[in-house]
Amino acid sequence: MSENTRLVQVRQHVLKRNDTVARALRASFRAAGTYVVSLVSSPGAGKTALLEQMLGALHDRHRVAALVGDLATDNDARRLARSGAPVKQIITGTVCHLEAEMIKAALDDVPWEGLDFLFIENVGNLVCPAAFDLGEAAKVAIVSITEGDDKPLKYPDIFAVASLILVNKIDLAPYLDADVDRLIGNARRVNPDVEVLTVSARTGQGLDAWLAWLDARRIGQAA
Amino acid sequence: MSENTRLVQVRQHVLKRNDTVARALRASFRAAGTYVVSLVSSPGAGKTALLEQMLGALHDRHRVAALVGDLATDNDARRLARSGAPVKQIITGTVCHLEAEMIKAALDDVPWEGLDFLFIENVGNLVCPAAFDLGEAAKVAIVSITEGDDKPLKYPDIFAVASLILVNKIDLAPYLDADVDRLIGNARRVNPDVEVLTVSARTGQGLDAWLAWLDARRIGQAA
Repeated sequence: MSENTRLVQVRQHVLKRNDTVARALRASFRAAGTYVVSLVSSPGAGKTALLEQMLGALHDRHRVAALVGDLATDNDARRLARSGAPVKQIITGTVCHLEAEMIKAALDDVPWEGLDFLFIENVGNLVCPAAFDLGEAAKVAIVSITEGDDKPLKYPDIFAVASLILVNKIDLAPYLDADVDRLIGNARRVNPDVEVLTVSARTGQGLDAWLAWLDARRIGQAA
Repeated sequence: MSENTRLVQVRQHVLKRNDTVARALRASFRAAGTYVVSLVSSPGAGKTALLEQMLGALHDRHRVAALVGDLATDNDARRLARSGAPVKQIITGTVCHLEAEMIKAALDDVPWEGLDFLFIENVGNLVCPAAFDLGEAAKVAIVSITEGDDKPLKYPDIFAVASLILVNKIDLAPYLDADVDRLIGNARRVNPDVEVLTVSARTGQGLDAWLAWLDARRIGQAA
């Protein structure tokens, strides 16, 4: 057997095992009435800043918690814990994405039953997280308008599996050549039914609409 | 043997084979007097825009060519070919990084012997490209100031292996909370000797300094 064939086989096993763990997680989350959202994006697109805003906005009305993945440092967990919500850092070392087993293990340290929302922030990477189901109810892809309007065409897998795309840093649009409408058009070329919201974690623009989306989705899951 | 052990073993084999191919490529490039630079960054940090500027600036004085990696589309190759330099697109499908074998195969279609400079633009990914030697003389890491000043600490491997860091989109700094000096300080925490230039592909700021760096490096390799 060639090395490439072996690599493909081992990868298929890993993905299959991941899917089994993810399915069990999804069933537990649904049974517990916890709406689970994972956030995926390039490094620096604003996952943590947006999550910080959401934890702050949701924390007084709902029970919320977050798991955050990074190769190194627990900077994000410390930053997000200021919201008062329970936050657990998952340090992946050289692994470029979160896997369902990591979520399962992290939940041992987070009292998650009874939560209304659990957020999972993936490692900043537009490629590998697309293949790994984490048991979430929805994947939210975040793309900063500073990244240009062509990203959905160049990284189609991640945009294809997203339920919602947040176009972040919209406050910077006047200083850029990127075209927001073209970005949204490109996203719909790879995922025709995807919902899209334009937001700015910095100015707060569009965050109410995201909050409403989350609330509606949680109620929809419970119904 | 556990699945994880098998995965680690197969991965080590892949990296070892990659290193062998990369070493041979590096020897060929040096013998031919071709200075080879690879560009790594997050999606949307400006690799293609900076490369476009460099090909344009170098093309009248030097023999230059480029290989560009993307999961999907040949948009970048078509864009860069406008410079007049030979450009070859490498489409990786679901593979999140370039490997030495892909470079070797692509060079069959590019008349590279006699080139002064060969640029290799990697897939936009701050994680996986760090592990794969492509036979390049230097890895240049590009980070957009819009990504925030903490990225070198959160994605240390890629910044640790870079010879030069280009802090791009510096024209947007006035509209951001990110601190350029803090970003450079963080880069030096993971790579104390790394050279850093601030640039803007959009305004042209700093591009002369990068051009001078490339020229000096090529002359240094030939000496």
